[in-house]
Amino acid sequence: MRKKLEISLVRTKVYDLLKEEILSGEIHLGQRLNVRKLSEELGISPTPVRDALLALSADGLVRVVPRVGFFVTELTENYINEIIESRIMVESFCLKKYFDEIRNSPDILKLYDEVKKVIDTENRKLFDESDEVLHMLIVKSSSNKTIIDFYEKLWDKIDLVRHLNKRYLDSNKEHLSIIESILKNEKESAIKFLLRHIENVKDETLKNLKTSKVTK
Amino acid sequence: MRKKLEISLVRTKVYDLLKEEILSGEIHLGQRLNVRKLSEELGISPTPVRDALLALSADGLVRVVPRVGFFVTELTENYINEIIESRIMVESFCLKKYFDEIRNSPDILKLYDEVKKVIDTENRKLFDESDEVLHMLIVKSSSNKTIIDFYEKLWDKIDLVRHLNKRYLDSNKEHLSIIESILKNEKESAIKFLLRHIENVKDETLKNLKTSKVTK
Repeated sequence: MRKKLEISLVRTKVYDLLKEEILSGEIHLGQRLNVRKLSEELGISPTPVRDALLALSADGLVRVVPRVGFFVTELTENYINEIIESRIMVESFCLKKYFDEIRNSPDILKLYDEVKKVIDTENRKLFDESDEVLHMLIVKSSSNKTIIDFYEKLWDKIDLVRHLNKRYLDSNKEHLSIIESILKNEKESAIKFLLRHIENVKDETLKNLKTSKVTK
Repeated sequence: MRKKLEISLVRTKVYDLLKEEILSGEIHLGQRLNVRKLSEELGISPTPVRDALLALSADGLVRVVPRVGFFVTELTENYINEIIESRIMVESFCLKKYFDEIRNSPDILKLYDEVKKVIDTENRKLFDESDEVLHMLIVKSSSNKTIIDFYEKLWDKIDLVRHLNKRYLDSNKEHLSIIESILKNEKESAIKFLLRHIENVKDETLKNLKTSKVTK
């Protein structure tokens, strides 16, 4: 039992490491992940590496090709369209149903200050943080773990090409419009701004996808 | 490589077998799944059993308790509320956005006949089939694999207690109202009937949950 526990901890560490390298772009989209090579590089047995890759495939970040091996998910235009439509479904549902919870949350005012700070400082890291906080605030307002888990996996997929994003100052302005509408208790306009923003995220993500293919 | 392939096929078979036994109620909610015992019963090594249980835990049908073991997911009232809210989110989104695709699908007329046949024959098996066909038709109209996969996992959770369902003739009438509204091109009323139906499914599922706890 003790041995199994250690294995399971190693698996979690390998999972976290590979996930970070995939999401940062250090490991490219579509790149093959060789179990033997990875286990040699990490100085561990192949089993936890294989387990970690199976867990990443359950997240949709890794693709298993039977008889061939593991590959980082290749984002296609169709896949991005699916993910964006899923985001629209989840975020618009939560913003509509839990609008008052979001509006009355103490986090929304803090976020408002941060988003304004991004305008003054053009600080990319601060933007990335506030980006995640805003969208997660909308979804987490549901307190529905099933919906939140689903959404976090969608977020990770967009993360695959998020480091290539160049329009963050425009995105930030769009966030400001959403937050201001929420604070002014204008539900319909908040939803309208949110949907428009996600459509822009889609266009940018599809553009990033092309860039990522060219540089590979 | 050949050895790994065989292992992976065994894993899939074990996965399918356990899933069927869990969903049919043959293995109870909350029951412990012992890797060693299962591998002895099945006459195979523990690895594919463990892999299958990890895959079932990624589906949410099995719960991993670190240092302890694997258990069939225990449905709680809170979890059922989460699943039902997720179903409302997905089905209402798809019915709204893809209403015309559903209305013009050749499957809807076939389904209409089947639902009417259930009224005449009171055939439970036919109801179960048409139940799945109707809800999947609504969701599959999106052609969005990410949404469909998410929904199928929700469906499996409700399946955990579906065999206890006693109000199938009422459910069938509700299906009829939804289908008739779709065929009459009455979008708003179709959505209204769908939402009311899913609320009834929730009440029934919560009741089934209590029954399943008593009989265990």
